[in-house]
Amino acid sequence: MRTIKIGLLGLGTVGGGVVKLLQEHAAKIEQTTNVHFILKRVAVAHLNKPRKFSLPEETILTDQIDEVLNDPEIQIIVETMGTINRARQAIVQAIYNHKSVITANKDLLAIDGPKLAQLAKSRHVDFLYEASVAGGIPILRVLSSSLVTDQITRVSGIINGTANYILSAMVSDNLSYDKALMNAQQKGYAEANPVNDVKGIDAANKLSILSQFAFGKALDPTNLNVRGIDQLTSAQLASAKQFGYTIKLLAIAKRLSNRLYTSVGPTLVDNNDQLAQVNGVQNAIAIESNALGSSVYTGPGAGAKPTANSILSDLAAAANDILNYDCGNAFNNYHSELTPSTLNNAPQSYLITIYGRSTRPVDSIDWQNETSNHNYWSGLTPVISHKKLNLLLETIGNDFAVSYLPVYGTVKLQAIKEVK
Amino acid sequence: MRTIKIGLLGLGTVGGGVVKLLQEHAAKIEQTTNVHFILKRVAVAHLNKPRKFSLPEETILTDQIDEVLNDPEIQIIVETMGTINRARQAIVQAIYNHKSVITANKDLLAIDGPKLAQLAKSRHVDFLYEASVAGGIPILRVLSSSLVTDQITRVSGIINGTANYILSAMVSDNLSYDKALMNAQQKGYAEANPVNDVKGIDAANKLSILSQFAFGKALDPTNLNVRGIDQLTSAQLASAKQFGYTIKLLAIAKRLSNRLYTSVGPTLVDNNDQLAQVNGVQNAIAIESNALGSSVYTGPGAGAKPTANSILSDLAAAANDILNYDCGNAFNNYHSELTPSTLNNAPQSYLITIYGRSTRPVDSIDWQNETSNHNYWSGLTPVISHKKLNLLLETIGNDFAVSYLPVYGTVKLQAIKEVK
Repeated sequence: MRTIKIGLLGLGTVGGGVVKLLQEHAAKIEQTTNVHFILKRVAVAHLNKPRKFSLPEETILTDQIDEVLNDPEIQIIVETMGTINRARQAIVQAIYNHKSVITANKDLLAIDGPKLAQLAKSRHVDFLYEASVAGGIPILRVLSSSLVTDQITRVSGIINGTANYILSAMVSDNLSYDKALMNAQQKGYAEANPVNDVKGIDAANKLSILSQFAFGKALDPTNLNVRGIDQLTSAQLASAKQFGYTIKLLAIAKRLSNRLYTSVGPTLVDNNDQLAQVNGVQNAIAIESNALGSSVYTGPGAGAKPTANSILSDLAAAANDILNYDCGNAFNNYHSELTPSTLNNAPQSYLITIYGRSTRPVDSIDWQNETSNHNYWSGLTPVISHKKLNLLLETIGNDFAVSYLPVYGTVKLQAIKEVK
Repeated sequence: MRTIKIGLLGLGTVGGGVVKLLQEHAAKIEQTTNVHFILKRVAVAHLNKPRKFSLPEETILTDQIDEVLNDPEIQIIVETMGTINRARQAIVQAIYNHKSVITANKDLLAIDGPKLAQLAKSRHVDFLYEASVAGGIPILRVLSSSLVTDQITRVSGIINGTANYILSAMVSDNLSYDKALMNAQQKGYAEANPVNDVKGIDAANKLSILSQFAFGKALDPTNLNVRGIDQLTSAQLASAKQFGYTIKLLAIAKRLSNRLYTSVGPTLVDNNDQLAQVNGVQNAIAIESNALGSSVYTGPGAGAKPTANSILSDLAAAANDILNYDCGNAFNNYHSELTPSTLNNAPQSYLITIYGRSTRPVDSIDWQNETSNHNYWSGLTPVISHKKLNLLLETIGNDFAVSYLPVYGTVKLQAIKEVK
């Protein structure tokens, strides 16, 4: 058995999970990887902060990050500090020091993932980040190994556990958005400043990474047209339910010929769709592909142990590459020249909700379903063009407040091409 | 780019799928694997049989299997012939000839998988078989890479598409078993002799392989206590539905300390469970593990392209090992000394159905739910011991025909241990 020494940056929820799992699962990990991992050094911000778990006896705790990054015995660095700039700096230094790097830092990866991957490759070290998307679903490794021989046409994900927890609570407990958010914060599922989660920014960052693996094209998340869940009304949720749908924060990337269409935002999902059944902090990723047709992967989206397990699976892979003198292969080799575009302009079906009015607003549309009470009227459109949607919203919006949500799976991309 | 020449044995549904996908996805496969695969030779039983697809120009078709197995240029053999004895012979010869082998032959693997894996290892060639379980779900690679660092406690699978298709049709179209089987046969989802599928034998074979990956313990499928779906009655399906359950052919392996408890057979699944939503020929595998908690993978269970994609993902892995001079690693390294046991003797909840009687048979049981019509009475027991079940069946069975089915997820294994 070989020994490989590793360094850990950060000892928060995820870092602590790594320390615990490395100990709890040590026997199985040694047997299956044939490697004895020694956690040699851990860098933390505060040396004396009380912690709920103990470090292995041989582990050296330090508040000097350089002691970890510059230790010549350490071959793999696990970065769980979070933040963008300090993490980037540490990762770059680790790579320059010829260490393989494992990170879960999706915010950094969404911005600089391809660049860091390139740097790692040029320095012949591994750069792995399974934990960055859907913590406990091994989706990146599946995409880059089992599905690497398939042609993927669509990826749809519930990839923000906080938003899904809030939405599930709004539906099952009939809560307002504000109340559901407060509950999520009390239970530790949402941060005090939840903007990244509820505005869809986190989901967009993850979609950028997913898209690189599924389509060979990293998306600039700041260019994505992202809608959050913070404007959802109970009228929308109730109407969706009545029509046989639930509302999910979906991140979607769909390929048609040389274009990659994306959307991130609250979307109606048919109750018969597997994605509709995914509740609470669970995540799910649905893949449409040429060979497999439809497959769905569900699992925990976050949490100390699920995320830590994804990091450990990266550790096993990095160790294997070290043993085989085969470091420096990209986590994902696929690249393609697709033009990013938005799904939001595509013809699709919508839920239209009008506040302060209880009768059908326009008769010229073949409404698929409608409902009303004294507070609102809601209707489900057939597949209509974006132009027609805008006209409809304008017509109604002159007199009433109105909101709309797309219906998952109704997009007609062919139609867009014909129009152009 | 490197060139690797491969040989294919068999050109039926799966073999044909391999030929087609290799051509359709050639560009992506070359880019992501950095290998140009040449299908050099294909062995078939009948040279002149008409086929719906064309072979690449450079491919040599032969009815002499030895021409493929003995070609020194061929580095990887893909076996899609089916049958046990001829396939075993071919695989052994390929391994002796120093070729990596890929197969989907679950019947052979359930019997001789560990032996063949050992032989391949000793000859420093790869032996891969992702396609053998749940054709389009990359479950073996997930278990041996992403979950290799986790501790799995239970695996539950809908892993026979034919049985699931029949059960789904019985439920949704209210068909008898015989009628549903006939439909499945007409649509090509069931073979003329469906015994392996409907008797649970195929599911047991796959559970044996799954168990080796999840628990490090290959089970002897002939020692498993297997029940089929061919004795299910419409009374059972209707009663289950009324109680909020559906019936699935489940293969389950559950670990408690040093024992591995298994069952294969029709089982009531709560409609709120993700497994209940898996219909038709779709497969699903639910994993309970220490780090991840609960995760579920669903996808196509069979079919030319899904199975072929799993074979191609093996091909990519085998090629990577050839490029790295790293062949001969076991597909799965995990092994453990667990004692096989049966879940069927564990305390659990049951659906009891009595034919020709419409009143409650025994008052001493705290029935959780009951229903009846003029033909039958059905009741849901609380968790009861196997002994109590047998007493109950005996009592009732003296006067009436009676059947029972376990309820998924109700097993109380702790109780078994306490009794012992």
